[in-house]
Amino acid sequence: MTDVRKRALELSKEKGGKFETGSKFPIETMEDLAIAYTPGVAEVSSAIAKNKDDVYTYTSKRNLVAVVTDGSAVLGLGNIGPEAAIPVMEGKAALFKRFAGVDAVPISLNTQDVDEIVSHIQAIAPSFGGINLEDISAPRCFEVERRLKETLDIPVFHDDQHGTGIVVLAALYNALKLTGKKIEEVKIVVNGGGAAGIAISKRLLSAGVKHLTVVDKTGIISKDDPNLDERHKEIAELTNKNNVKGDLETAVQNADVFVGVSAPHVLKKEWVQTMNEQAIVFAMANPEPEIMPDEAKEGGAYIVATGRSDFPNQINNVLAFPGIFRGALDSRARDITDEMQIAAAKGIASALSEEDLSPNQIIPDVFTPGLAEAVAKSVTDVVSQNRSD
Amino acid sequence: MTDVRKRALELSKEKGGKFETGSKFPIETMEDLAIAYTPGVAEVSSAIAKNKDDVYTYTSKRNLVAVVTDGSAVLGLGNIGPEAAIPVMEGKAALFKRFAGVDAVPISLNTQDVDEIVSHIQAIAPSFGGINLEDISAPRCFEVERRLKETLDIPVFHDDQHGTGIVVLAALYNALKLTGKKIEEVKIVVNGGGAAGIAISKRLLSAGVKHLTVVDKTGIISKDDPNLDERHKEIAELTNKNNVKGDLETAVQNADVFVGVSAPHVLKKEWVQTMNEQAIVFAMANPEPEIMPDEAKEGGAYIVATGRSDFPNQINNVLAFPGIFRGALDSRARDITDEMQIAAAKGIASALSEEDLSPNQIIPDVFTPGLAEAVAKSVTDVVSQNRSD
Repeated sequence: MTDVRKRALELSKEKGGKFETGSKFPIETMEDLAIAYTPGVAEVSSAIAKNKDDVYTYTSKRNLVAVVTDGSAVLGLGNIGPEAAIPVMEGKAALFKRFAGVDAVPISLNTQDVDEIVSHIQAIAPSFGGINLEDISAPRCFEVERRLKETLDIPVFHDDQHGTGIVVLAALYNALKLTGKKIEEVKIVVNGGGAAGIAISKRLLSAGVKHLTVVDKTGIISKDDPNLDERHKEIAELTNKNNVKGDLETAVQNADVFVGVSAPHVLKKEWVQTMNEQAIVFAMANPEPEIMPDEAKEGGAYIVATGRSDFPNQINNVLAFPGIFRGALDSRARDITDEMQIAAAKGIASALSEEDLSPNQIIPDVFTPGLAEAVAKSVTDVVSQNRSD
Repeated sequence: MTDVRKRALELSKEKGGKFETGSKFPIETMEDLAIAYTPGVAEVSSAIAKNKDDVYTYTSKRNLVAVVTDGSAVLGLGNIGPEAAIPVMEGKAALFKRFAGVDAVPISLNTQDVDEIVSHIQAIAPSFGGINLEDISAPRCFEVERRLKETLDIPVFHDDQHGTGIVVLAALYNALKLTGKKIEEVKIVVNGGGAAGIAISKRLLSAGVKHLTVVDKTGIISKDDPNLDERHKEIAELTNKNNVKGDLETAVQNADVFVGVSAPHVLKKEWVQTMNEQAIVFAMANPEPEIMPDEAKEGGAYIVATGRSDFPNQINNVLAFPGIFRGALDSRARDITDEMQIAAAKGIASALSEEDLSPNQIIPDVFTPGLAEAVAKSVTDVVSQNRSD
């Protein structure tokens, strides 16, 4: 067990988990009590009873997100159930608070039935200003998110799906600045046909990428494959009109960008050598990347990013979700749209100044002061712009 | 609008409600991040996946209560819906934290269907160490509580029903000490046949009261009345075997104790004069009591308590629920039993020292240091005793 893992266990036991609650009102005198509870609270409840919208004026709803899981796809641990998922939900809640001042409550649901998950989240929605879905396995997560987005008047976001796509896009924006290449011209290979790979692919397409190849375990995703599910059929349609076939080795030839959300060590140095000049490699498999950064560099990669904090350029969702929700809550957005997510990516990219930008620093550090605020501003600007249109 | 109500509104707007969340782990460095989130958190989740019971060792569940409402019976405001109920749930959560260090999350449900309420609370239960039901209207609240108690392995408590009964019992214990009367000998009249009146009556009976009369708007509850619902039939059976009939005026004659959870000014001074010597009057109607304290005293009452903070002897649920949950959580009780509730009442009564006990001070002030701890200890002692039996 590494020190970090051991320390996580010890500290969790000592503190009783990470999550705690607080009161923004002082309660030290009888008058304080009368303000925080009865009879004072009756005035606040009455105001909201008269005008339901005032719930955003007078309650914690305006800053409160539920971090909801069913425990079915927790980290790399799989379907470990709602109790074992709590530490992750607590961690996510802690990051919301630390990086964007968003209050977040961990909620682990005791069901893995889509209808029930949707129904429970709809039921608790009045208390919350947003819903962050977490660690729900595909393909159930797609339907849960879609149905909640259709029915709730608060933003719903599945970070596991969209978060990485946003940070990848942010990293790509800055990598392209360094290479002088254009997003609509570069050839990108996404390796990994799971929920993350599909979400990243769609994010890249919506951001203007024109030359995208998605590779699965069986090779380049192509509509000739009779075993494709609905989402892979859609990807084949969107990315592979000419039914190109081949494996990863073929796919990366003359590519400008490799994006891996697949498995350790599947990208060979020799293959990187066949990529275009100033190749960009985002190798995000965890804990071991698709190719180690030094190998990728030896193969000629100009920029390498991973999911790990012990290498330069960590593609970390923490860069995105706190600021996105900060912006969505501040603007009282009813949804977190594609446009808002692309704006968030631009916000993250811009948080790194031109002077600081280099191949070993294409994305800001998560502790960069003002980062979440910058992301939030990008998001609220989109919402304001759309409202005034 | 009184100053307190105005201030509650202003402060709620300024702060954005009362509720907030926090993290018990510091997150200032990359190492902190690795401990609070990945990869450290995987170790904690894995431990719980191996042994589900460890959720109490490593997560916030051990100190976390959901304060759940459907917004159907909020304070005296009635069925104002889940959004308008949030300020009350936030207030309750604030009191849990302030008085007993219990973390509590306000949850307002978007349904008033009993089956759905039960199902939603069952679904969110994995995250929580206890459920505090709040402001759910009768008779639905009885069924919701019963079904949750039957199915959940964490304590469930409906404070509106049981809280007042516990504090009334605590006040009665100390009042009886002052008058030298015995609980099994005194004649008690409960005025009010609603959920609170019935819950108080049952609490008194379970604590050993032998002579209890319950009076409703239609008079003394008697099984001859063809309009009685199930709960009133049960009360008639338990308290009025001889089918005594009459109104409140008749009922209080020669009574030792009046307990009012009914309506303002329904108890006349002249009727108090017909009570036994050293009469005890708990007039808890809000905001105006059944009889004003000075009138009751003029009628000969020796001890008067109300629900108000501006008179002596405030019967306030805050005296009970924080310590009860503190005790239930600390002892990992699966239920909050009658015995634990009676122990809590004794704990509250004992928190006031003999020297401080007087007719104008039969219950401790809510800010008494160590109060919740004393109540918690009474509760955990019962749990430990039952486990060792």
